[in-house]
Amino acid sequence: MAAEIAEQPAVLAGLLHRRARFAEVAGVIARKPPRFALLAARGSSDHAALYAKYLIEVLLGLPAGLVSPSTVTLYGARPDLRDCLLVSVSQSGGSPDLLEFTQTARKQGALTVAVTNTPSSPLHKAAELAIDIGAGTEQAVAATKTYSATLLALYLLVDAIRGGDGSAAAGIGELAQEAYEIPVQRAVDRYRFVDRIITTGRGYSYATALESALKLAETSYLAARAYSGADLLHGPVAAIDEDTAVLAVTGAGRGGAAMHDVLAEVAQRGADVLALGSSCSEVPAAVRVPVPEIAEELAPVLEVIPVQRIALGLALARGGDPDSPRGLRKVTKTR
Amino acid sequence: MAAEIAEQPAVLAGLLHRRARFAEVAGVIARKPPRFALLAARGSSDHAALYAKYLIEVLLGLPAGLVSPSTVTLYGARPDLRDCLLVSVSQSGGSPDLLEFTQTARKQGALTVAVTNTPSSPLHKAAELAIDIGAGTEQAVAATKTYSATLLALYLLVDAIRGGDGSAAAGIGELAQEAYEIPVQRAVDRYRFVDRIITTGRGYSYATALESALKLAETSYLAARAYSGADLLHGPVAAIDEDTAVLAVTGAGRGGAAMHDVLAEVAQRGADVLALGSSCSEVPAAVRVPVPEIAEELAPVLEVIPVQRIALGLALARGGDPDSPRGLRKVTKTR
Repeated sequence: MAAEIAEQPAVLAGLLHRRARFAEVAGVIARKPPRFALLAARGSSDHAALYAKYLIEVLLGLPAGLVSPSTVTLYGARPDLRDCLLVSVSQSGGSPDLLEFTQTARKQGALTVAVTNTPSSPLHKAAELAIDIGAGTEQAVAATKTYSATLLALYLLVDAIRGGDGSAAAGIGELAQEAYEIPVQRAVDRYRFVDRIITTGRGYSYATALESALKLAETSYLAARAYSGADLLHGPVAAIDEDTAVLAVTGAGRGGAAMHDVLAEVAQRGADVLALGSSCSEVPAAVRVPVPEIAEELAPVLEVIPVQRIALGLALARGGDPDSPRGLRKVTKTR
Repeated sequence: MAAEIAEQPAVLAGLLHRRARFAEVAGVIARKPPRFALLAARGSSDHAALYAKYLIEVLLGLPAGLVSPSTVTLYGARPDLRDCLLVSVSQSGGSPDLLEFTQTARKQGALTVAVTNTPSSPLHKAAELAIDIGAGTEQAVAATKTYSATLLALYLLVDAIRGGDGSAAAGIGELAQEAYEIPVQRAVDRYRFVDRIITTGRGYSYATALESALKLAETSYLAARAYSGADLLHGPVAAIDEDTAVLAVTGAGRGGAAMHDVLAEVAQRGADVLALGSSCSEVPAAVRVPVPEIAEELAPVLEVIPVQRIALGLALARGGDPDSPRGLRKVTKTR
């Protein structure tokens, strides 16, 4: 897991060299412009899919929704998907329910695009268009480099669809290296014995909050829950007290700014706040993890890197084996 | 909270008498048939919205997605929503972000329907069509009767759109009374001192799992997290051990049947399982809460009733005040 975390600057920089492929896929999509988009994914990829939903809605002005594969796989739904762009996201490309959903969506008229790290996978082949994120083999059960590479791939795809050339991502390899070098030991020390962690973020960085909770749960077995900053105030904030750690993603930009009110509520309850992001210095916090600044819509690509290092550090400090969390397999097959 | 939980059989039976209104709204929708649907909501209503997403996809064959209001309210997205049906769900009709999203969606061409318990609310008035769930004033902060009534209203709306007359819901008042009378004291006693609860369900009943986690978090301050049965196996299952309680929703039907594999994994880890639903006798469990059987797509309306009574019982046993959880307000205003 440590080695794969460290590979991310190179993997992200490498992805920028594949921009021709993104332009090619975007060209096909432009010939059949979608009215709306669906995103299908499981696990970490589901967080990448949520990130893409924000990109599609804000940058393309298209409504987008996350798929519940069970409507098709369990209940036999056959929705009319003409004028729909389906983006199926899976590093392994091996989950049977995503494969079945993608095959059905294609039959139902959707233009299907698979984003995977496994060009030989059934999902990669089932979709009309496919993008290989090229992150190289990932051996640790917890997805790290495939997660950040998937985020960047989805950004480059959406940017290409609107005619962009990914220029906002130029230099992301160097910035990822900086993000990788941010010291996280203080956070690891402070949360060595914590049991309850709530993670929260808004806008694009809600994806970072979700991925943080999953990384902490699957490697350190923490009771970590993620809420969007807005949803947190609609009830779950009641469960926050002095014994709760709150990992708050606070980047520059509108999502981060909207977290200020949320953190004022959280601070009132005495929670121990770990602020992570490019504007973490602006909020009250016990521990701050600054992340290099980049365009807000790309911030999640960088934010997750120190999160992964904190999850790894906590897993080791707590005596776990982050490379093979108890009873998890690399490819989970759900139907 | 106890009084409002007890009102549900009457509230649900009363809603069946409003079927003419559902037919009327469905008639307007039929004159402008949507190509896809969006659902906007926060808090408990978000779980009702997810339930409606399954109904729309399975029963109407339309793709549907949950809205992230911040794409419009924070980032200024202006998606093209012609041919889109937007259903905005909020018992109070008072959340500024839902109001702004609904107004924007209407301007962008969506056919907008509000489902609220407050006909005088700004949201009710902002939408082109509105349905009053008629549950009467809800005073407890934790939504109970407005949640089940919203589920039934969404079912009746979707059923009316496909030309149905809600006949599958006939007798739901009596069944709700039976569900209300199911003994839950054993569950309350067993989980009096638990700290970690994971809730899980699949298909329509995933909404029940989400709502269960929220009720437990907001009234009993438990670290409760919800996962769809499929997502649970993609990572979070690693955090389950002998000290974890798992509330599993296991109804009759395809969603419940798909939980059997999930519960086999969970049982291997020694978790303490509370099985709740009409087929709870079919799975290994420490405590079982049987719920009267009804068509699978209506099961969530009944399942939540014993869940509310368990949450109430735990809150009281743990010395909390379920009527006013620390620091929560009835109407949460997020932007």
